[in-house]
Amino acid sequence: MRVDVIVSPAFLEGGELEGSLCAVVDVLRATSTITTALTSGAAAVYPCLDVEEAKRGAAAFGRERSLLGGEERGQLIPGFDLGNSPLEYLDADVVDGKAIYFYTTNGTGAVRRAYAECDRSVYIAALINMSAVSSAIVGAASDGKAAGIVILCSGRYGKPSAEDTFCSGLMVRMAVNGLREFGIPPDLTDSAMVAAGFAEANEGKGLDILASSEHGRFLQSLGFTPDLDFASRLDSYNAVPVFNGERIVLLNGDS
Amino acid sequence: MRVDVIVSPAFLEGGELEGSLCAVVDVLRATSTITTALTSGAAAVYPCLDVEEAKRGAAAFGRERSLLGGEERGQLIPGFDLGNSPLEYLDADVVDGKAIYFYTTNGTGAVRRAYAECDRSVYIAALINMSAVSSAIVGAASDGKAAGIVILCSGRYGKPSAEDTFCSGLMVRMAVNGLREFGIPPDLTDSAMVAAGFAEANEGKGLDILASSEHGRFLQSLGFTPDLDFASRLDSYNAVPVFNGERIVLLNGDS
Repeated sequence: MRVDVIVSPAFLEGGELEGSLCAVVDVLRATSTITTALTSGAAAVYPCLDVEEAKRGAAAFGRERSLLGGEERGQLIPGFDLGNSPLEYLDADVVDGKAIYFYTTNGTGAVRRAYAECDRSVYIAALINMSAVSSAIVGAASDGKAAGIVILCSGRYGKPSAEDTFCSGLMVRMAVNGLREFGIPPDLTDSAMVAAGFAEANEGKGLDILASSEHGRFLQSLGFTPDLDFASRLDSYNAVPVFNGERIVLLNGDS
Repeated sequence: MRVDVIVSPAFLEGGELEGSLCAVVDVLRATSTITTALTSGAAAVYPCLDVEEAKRGAAAFGRERSLLGGEERGQLIPGFDLGNSPLEYLDADVVDGKAIYFYTTNGTGAVRRAYAECDRSVYIAALINMSAVSSAIVGAASDGKAAGIVILCSGRYGKPSAEDTFCSGLMVRMAVNGLREFGIPPDLTDSAMVAAGFAEANEGKGLDILASSEHGRFLQSLGFTPDLDFASRLDSYNAVPVFNGERIVLLNGDS
């Protein structure tokens, strides 16, 4: 089975996600934050394409039962309740039971794009839940019917990002092992090979990768250094968020 | 000094090569073949944007002193003298003193594009000459005046390729060490970090990378398996080909 990594949505040509199992990665920070919010008890996260869509959605849903979250240029958006730091979504008193209308520069668009392209539920992955998502994908692939497994990195302004490539490389390595256990020979694309090699060379160095990456340095300059530590912790959560075309909810619960 | 890898010309936005020292990589096979041809005594290689440009150039230069070389879909082009296998360019009796008008699917366009973008001579690199080119670039960078070092991978049909990323990663590692020797702190982009990590994870496995890459598998299916072995040998040549906007010649001779 084909295992692919697409290093940025700018590399999507159309058609390559069709019939595939797809995970979207945005380690810094959208998919880390979505995973944290749902684990903390949020009812659902609605990934939005722009600020206005988020505002309209929250207003229609009812502002007392919703939160507006996300960022532009890394910062809180005027009129929004929360930014894009996963740490803001840790407090169950804040997020429990809430519908979160969420917009970020790279991540939420990638989630929507992936769903539009593959026309089935999309997995949401970050370092903090990468094993859970990888296992779920391999399980879904075990009947051998999917066209392949594709990990779509959100990247940064259309370019590849080190942290997303690192996470996708770890997931490729798990997928390879998992598929083999099911007797399905994995067939890696060049981008999947590169991501897996990068992850292998940096095993145990997740925080170093995040801290030295272009987006990590930008976030540190804004004062978000604790986010990097949080987002770099492998498998903090046994949570598998999935986007069904409308909203993101947990496939399983936190263990 | 900024050290960047651009994994495919499709990722060139314009402006990022300006004032930078730039090397173009197309391991399978254009830059391997260009390096081989010049080392075997070819007078110059003219990288062309299409078959017609190559034919016109060779006719104007004089067919008795020129050769038409290259490929479309991996194969010899009708009316051309040579294909794109570096092995065809090993024989001094064939290439000595000749001007080679050369067109390939990904590589020659990348060379031309790089020159147009950075507006200075462009280095031509492959695994077979990567140390020589890396040293030349670091030497040129040692006055600290260049905006950066950029390695442009030709990739495959606009997508990243494992073999070019591997070669560029080895060159990033040499550039990092070289710049430090000159007291210039290297500043790696995310793509440069990823390429360097991929190369580190696969040290000594060049032939494996080439053989399992998408383009390597395609070439094997066409019967070009010996090309992979040839193109995977690190530093066979101490040759630094440079493109001056018109033609590619050797900066130094083969040692």
